[in-house]
Amino acid sequence: MNQPAHPSSLKKPLPGALLDALRALAGDRVSTSDAVRAHHGKDESAHPHALPDAVVYAQTTEEISAIVKLCAQHQVPLIPFGAGSSVEGHVLAIHGGIALDLTRMNKVLAVNADDLDAIVEAGVTRKQLNRELHDTGLFFPIDPGADATIAGMAATRASGTNAVRYGTMRDNVMGLTVVLADGRVIRTGGRARKSSAGYDLTRLFVGSEGTLGVITEVTVRLHPQPEAVSAAICMFPTADQAVRTVIETIQMGVPVARCEFLDALTIKAVNRYSKLTLREVPMLLCEFHGTQGSVEEQARTVQAIASDNGGLDFEWSTKQEERTRLWQARHDAYLACMQLRPGNRGVATDVCVPVSRLAECIAETNEDIAKASMPIALFGHVGDGNFHLVILVDPANANDLAEAETINHRCVMRALAMGGTSTGEHGIGIGKLDFLDAEHGDAVTVMRSIKQALDPHNLLNPGKVLRV
Amino acid sequence: MNQPAHPSSLKKPLPGALLDALRALAGDRVSTSDAVRAHHGKDESAHPHALPDAVVYAQTTEEISAIVKLCAQHQVPLIPFGAGSSVEGHVLAIHGGIALDLTRMNKVLAVNADDLDAIVEAGVTRKQLNRELHDTGLFFPIDPGADATIAGMAATRASGTNAVRYGTMRDNVMGLTVVLADGRVIRTGGRARKSSAGYDLTRLFVGSEGTLGVITEVTVRLHPQPEAVSAAICMFPTADQAVRTVIETIQMGVPVARCEFLDALTIKAVNRYSKLTLREVPMLLCEFHGTQGSVEEQARTVQAIASDNGGLDFEWSTKQEERTRLWQARHDAYLACMQLRPGNRGVATDVCVPVSRLAECIAETNEDIAKASMPIALFGHVGDGNFHLVILVDPANANDLAEAETINHRCVMRALAMGGTSTGEHGIGIGKLDFLDAEHGDAVTVMRSIKQALDPHNLLNPGKVLRV
Repeated sequence: MNQPAHPSSLKKPLPGALLDALRALAGDRVSTSDAVRAHHGKDESAHPHALPDAVVYAQTTEEISAIVKLCAQHQVPLIPFGAGSSVEGHVLAIHGGIALDLTRMNKVLAVNADDLDAIVEAGVTRKQLNRELHDTGLFFPIDPGADATIAGMAATRASGTNAVRYGTMRDNVMGLTVVLADGRVIRTGGRARKSSAGYDLTRLFVGSEGTLGVITEVTVRLHPQPEAVSAAICMFPTADQAVRTVIETIQMGVPVARCEFLDALTIKAVNRYSKLTLREVPMLLCEFHGTQGSVEEQARTVQAIASDNGGLDFEWSTKQEERTRLWQARHDAYLACMQLRPGNRGVATDVCVPVSRLAECIAETNEDIAKASMPIALFGHVGDGNFHLVILVDPANANDLAEAETINHRCVMRALAMGGTSTGEHGIGIGKLDFLDAEHGDAVTVMRSIKQALDPHNLLNPGKVLRV
Repeated sequence: MNQPAHPSSLKKPLPGALLDALRALAGDRVSTSDAVRAHHGKDESAHPHALPDAVVYAQTTEEISAIVKLCAQHQVPLIPFGAGSSVEGHVLAIHGGIALDLTRMNKVLAVNADDLDAIVEAGVTRKQLNRELHDTGLFFPIDPGADATIAGMAATRASGTNAVRYGTMRDNVMGLTVVLADGRVIRTGGRARKSSAGYDLTRLFVGSEGTLGVITEVTVRLHPQPEAVSAAICMFPTADQAVRTVIETIQMGVPVARCEFLDALTIKAVNRYSKLTLREVPMLLCEFHGTQGSVEEQARTVQAIASDNGGLDFEWSTKQEERTRLWQARHDAYLACMQLRPGNRGVATDVCVPVSRLAECIAETNEDIAKASMPIALFGHVGDGNFHLVILVDPANANDLAEAETINHRCVMRALAMGGTSTGEHGIGIGKLDFLDAEHGDAVTVMRSIKQALDPHNLLNPGKVLRV
């Protein structure tokens, strides 16, 4: 896909002395090749690409400390880079500088099965971690879709389908190793399940999107693999009925592990893409974790709630292959929607509202969708009140981009008016700077004070989260 | 109890102009009476009393903003004060100044039953909130023992018996209204169940012990009252066997709601105090929340684990009155221990370690207890790896205090060496300043940078959490 470069007026040429020093430190793990820079100048969003001047593949925390000190000495921006799967431009080098690729720091340093925790290097991906955990009876539940790095997920406070039961990265990061803007290395949090010892720096760095420090190691909480897993789908005549089922399920305290909504257009896309014959009406897809007795009980409870709300065709299953079939529809949703207009790019929205407002929020959003000139699919993690639009745009068509921006803007403002947030799990990046002000008002000045206290020269991922 | 005043050399007389301005603002809600100052110059700890120069009973966020501005203008310390139930000297006016009593801000502002959240003023206590929630089918689970205020619990990142299932204040505060050191009012977080919008200021203020801002309103997460509740006790020949039962329970993923350990001395104290006839050996006391089927299943699972570990006399019950009898022992433990040496004061320790190290940590701690000159009871929230010693001291006896300090020091250093924390739920206050350095090293400098950025004149609860 061709996208224009970011029009940065602040980009300065990279000092040769810095490049020399980086090469002395990291040898051929420093690259200025066009291909490598291009790979590190984009993410999964529709934001214009912005290439770094150089890329360093880091190997250790100590090395990163030295790299950060060099960047500080030369006043050159540094952008931590993991899987590149962010969707709000988090890794774009909009002011140039060094992309710090962490993917070679990919060792699982410790699995403490007895304590349900693990310590991983920044570049370990969630799928890799779960592969390495396979024989322990434990798993790491956070599933944002992409096979993101654990540090990248921490940096964006990611969540995904399991968050309704297991929480987000906020809840599942116990501690961090962080390189600060002056090269100092700190360790936050720890392995105790709780602590009241001082300010919660772990939670401050989780969600800071690389702007306060470089996360180099993460201590994560693990969970026992459930004894039994059961999945269920249910069709509904209207989105409203599906959403009401979700609200009542949460209010009943059913410990549902996943609770996903797909609208009729998404089902239509999925049917075409995956050659399924699902009824093209709004659908709920739930997963239950627990003992055999507990998952059966949970599924029965949700079935009863769905039935009261006009749900149809309730199917549930504890068999692995049937679950896989059921979840295939959800996992293929994004790709399937893309095929509604091949060659298009998706602009993803990410609002999250209190669940009591979810039905109303989706209904009003559907009015916008009905008026739009392009196909827009709606699906998401409705157990948390979080849903996405995928607005299909031709990135070369300014009208498409402007219309998508308007729809996103209306969606965010609607969510904020309902007590919700502009971003449930994608983060601010460069795409939601104005929305952060709209959402948090004067609290943004406190965020800015913290940024200035920890990164006074604005060298760590500048231009993201906050305007300094 | 007579305790010496705190030997502060930094105390300056309160400017008359400040007192006049406060009286113009708050009228007879300003007090300089000895009795009122004495009430606000102590907490539940054995730390020496330290009286504020004046007390203001605040009524609104706007008024607090004006009070904070006056204190800033006159460079006088301000100490937020709730129930006074802290145990590390958090509310002691060690540098004099104004105690800001928040107990008259005691309105539950909103209960959003559909969204499982509530918005309360700072001075609402946890028992008050639960009384007001009674008919909603919801409850607020955090139970630190004392009937603390919600804002005070937020400020110390409190937890208690339910944390193993429901988390701590970290997990159950969704948003805050905070008055900053310059009088600005900000709102952090919100009512969405998750958000990736900017730095997590909510979690920064939770646990900041009044040193970064004054919390005036709290949005808390509520939970459905469980359909069924069941309690169980089990006796063990040794502490080690009891603790191993806990570890295996957690590792199995049993969603136990409470999991408390009481050592033989605690049981002896409880027997005397509450006229019970429990076998004077280590005991586990568990509570299970869920559906009828689920709590029975959980209790059976724990019974099997306990039995494998030599557990005796396993009793479980879903009847309210039997549960009350079972939990009475736990609730009376602190008072009961005090009666082991009437007139004494308890020095409470609060370490928390990874559960795999809990048995070892308790065993080594028991060696110290065996050598001590005073009675020391051991009990706690072992499902989280958190336990307390209650060291009985005569506060007028310097030898007692020195011995208690030594035991606490050994206990903390042992926990830190095992990857644990100096404080699971009590906080740093003035009692654990050195331990914070030992636990977090250079990360404390980051905490200090944040303190300086948000409270540059060190007027908000000075001398707590950090030395500036």
